[in-house]
Amino acid sequence: MPDVKTNNPAADSVGIVVTRTLTVAQPPDVLKLECGRSLGPITVAYETYGQLTPERDNAILILHAWTGDAHAAGRHHPDDPKPGWWDNMVGPGKAFDTNRYFIICTNVLGGCKGSTGPTSPDPATGKPYGLTFPILTIADMVKVQKLVLDALGIERLLSMVGGSMGGMQALEWLLRYPEVPRSAIILASTSRLSPQSIAFNEVGRHAIVSDPNWQNGAYYGTDRQPETGLAIARMIGHITFLSDESMNQKFGRRLQNRNEYGYELTREFEVESYLHAQGSRFVKRFDANTYLYLTKAMDYYDAAQDWGEGSLEKACRRVEAKTLVVSFSSDWLFPSYQSRELVKALRQNNKDVSYLEIESSYGHDAFLLESSTLQRVMESFLDNLYATVVKHDA
Amino acid sequence: MPDVKTNNPAADSVGIVVTRTLTVAQPPDVLKLECGRSLGPITVAYETYGQLTPERDNAILILHAWTGDAHAAGRHHPDDPKPGWWDNMVGPGKAFDTNRYFIICTNVLGGCKGSTGPTSPDPATGKPYGLTFPILTIADMVKVQKLVLDALGIERLLSMVGGSMGGMQALEWLLRYPEVPRSAIILASTSRLSPQSIAFNEVGRHAIVSDPNWQNGAYYGTDRQPETGLAIARMIGHITFLSDESMNQKFGRRLQNRNEYGYELTREFEVESYLHAQGSRFVKRFDANTYLYLTKAMDYYDAAQDWGEGSLEKACRRVEAKTLVVSFSSDWLFPSYQSRELVKALRQNNKDVSYLEIESSYGHDAFLLESSTLQRVMESFLDNLYATVVKHDA
Repeated sequence: MPDVKTNNPAADSVGIVVTRTLTVAQPPDVLKLECGRSLGPITVAYETYGQLTPERDNAILILHAWTGDAHAAGRHHPDDPKPGWWDNMVGPGKAFDTNRYFIICTNVLGGCKGSTGPTSPDPATGKPYGLTFPILTIADMVKVQKLVLDALGIERLLSMVGGSMGGMQALEWLLRYPEVPRSAIILASTSRLSPQSIAFNEVGRHAIVSDPNWQNGAYYGTDRQPETGLAIARMIGHITFLSDESMNQKFGRRLQNRNEYGYELTREFEVESYLHAQGSRFVKRFDANTYLYLTKAMDYYDAAQDWGEGSLEKACRRVEAKTLVVSFSSDWLFPSYQSRELVKALRQNNKDVSYLEIESSYGHDAFLLESSTLQRVMESFLDNLYATVVKHDA
Repeated sequence: MPDVKTNNPAADSVGIVVTRTLTVAQPPDVLKLECGRSLGPITVAYETYGQLTPERDNAILILHAWTGDAHAAGRHHPDDPKPGWWDNMVGPGKAFDTNRYFIICTNVLGGCKGSTGPTSPDPATGKPYGLTFPILTIADMVKVQKLVLDALGIERLLSMVGGSMGGMQALEWLLRYPEVPRSAIILASTSRLSPQSIAFNEVGRHAIVSDPNWQNGAYYGTDRQPETGLAIARMIGHITFLSDESMNQKFGRRLQNRNEYGYELTREFEVESYLHAQGSRFVKRFDANTYLYLTKAMDYYDAAQDWGEGSLEKACRRVEAKTLVVSFSSDWLFPSYQSRELVKALRQNNKDVSYLEIESSYGHDAFLLESSTLQRVMESFLDNLYATVVKHDA
């Protein structure tokens, strides 16, 4: 009864969900990190939606971006003001249809949303790791996700999907554990950051570590937090998530609550107020050290270097999964040419890859905003897999 | 004897020059600023190169960009390590040929290179203005330049040229004093900043005012200067002056003095070291409050709003000069579409305008780097004027 479904706002929601945790890399089986240090035990926050089939053939892993978390869909409480960050894509009848698929989303290693990271207590001291936390890589995040799948008894994934930093994880999965994912969807991502992106990340990091309240990373439990530095980092980042075009459309040169220039050194344009609001909101939900660690992990990632001695074509020989790569025309943070480089490398190896560049003015953020196009594209990609891979009563 | 000229490094230089100052807007004839406040006396630092003809028909005004100064060409001392900022364009036989033209370059009102600005002593107190300095606009800068020309006895300009913020001044000249310039060259500029540019400016300003050493702008004469905030602002700015392409060419993902990742929270990529070096160099030569005032002046500028009730086409009815507009393909700070908007508005009024988009990977900085192309284009534009306007023995 599709009518009922459409008219009932709860009918396409996964409903009330809980974030669970599980612990992997228990000593002595600690995880060897790329930096050479070992880490364990590692707590991972995760959520799941839908039911795993008895054949365990319908699992899909969602890989969140930079400042995301495990809470991809549904609400934690009936009165939650907002659902999970990808609720428009995950639920009954949606692209990631929870009537069909078993969806898993974990908070990345190093995150500050329930998984072990700089904010977590170091078992050795009982105090937050802070800067004693080891430097992480995208590969380390993926290795932890693999341990989670092992713990859940899932050997193969029907698919995985990630945008931005999530797409880097998906690519690393394809190269590190090619036998696990049957397919992968990589959105607005890259096989390596451009120097321009590294530069923006470094200015953000510098703003954080220059904030006197950062206290060399040992601000936990003190009454001073590096909110100013973190807000500046986020403001820089936020500009790179939008586009010149979308900012023109959204703000133009409109002034905030006034008709004329005030001729004073205060913020007056709407775009300035918006940026400051983004900065202020962000510092309430995110940790400054975590920002340092995750940006560093992104800067380091270089699939060609790690897996192909500098050649992305060589690295992509390893890929076994069917892939869908999507970029967005106005994304200048991870521009389309970077996606095309990946697609080219996959095609050079005769891999099964589909590529779509979506015309959009939303910049990098488009991967979270161009819902209707993305919904159609991803749904059709998954439908195909569902029909051929998942055992079900058709 | 062109051979001699070519072989002698000094032959195409204007040689040793001095920065002069003159004082305008002497009380009671103070300058009424756009913000409503009055300012005077106003000191202006300027340099001149070449000789003014008896007919006073060969004067060209150079309008510097954001952090530039009056020292466009030559050297102040024989052992100066670097010549003026546009030495490759200004000198005997160069585009701005000092054998033909009388070149004037002033430091803008509000600058920190000899002209009255936030670092100057307030005559009322004897102490630096700091934040008591009035908010400036591009129009105010141009009004002061007009007073300088009046003081020098120059009624008409053969031409004027400005890149970036200098181009905004040139456009303001064309609209405010259309009877003065016979021609104008506008490089890598815009009739108004995009919200993206305003956003970058605001993050830079916020980094400065968040630096505890800024001391609410009253850091002059103290032992603490807002160097960290100013360096962050400059680093952000510097990224916007380059392009993704030029950064890929210049740095790629090369590491600085190492072959492998150090897995530590330090800067490791060449592009990071470069940016920090740019920031450090900048704070030695520029003033933080001045940065606030000049960025605000740029944010405010909107030729269409000021002169055409929101219509650039209407504003451009005022223009009398012949204009040359040049943009650069990879400039994303003041993108080509902004130059094309200006050119379109001029053409709608049947004005004499030439437009060239130069293919370049250098981003916004191209207007200082694409020397050979620019040299040819500007030289030919000026040759024409020289032949028709300037009285000389041909």
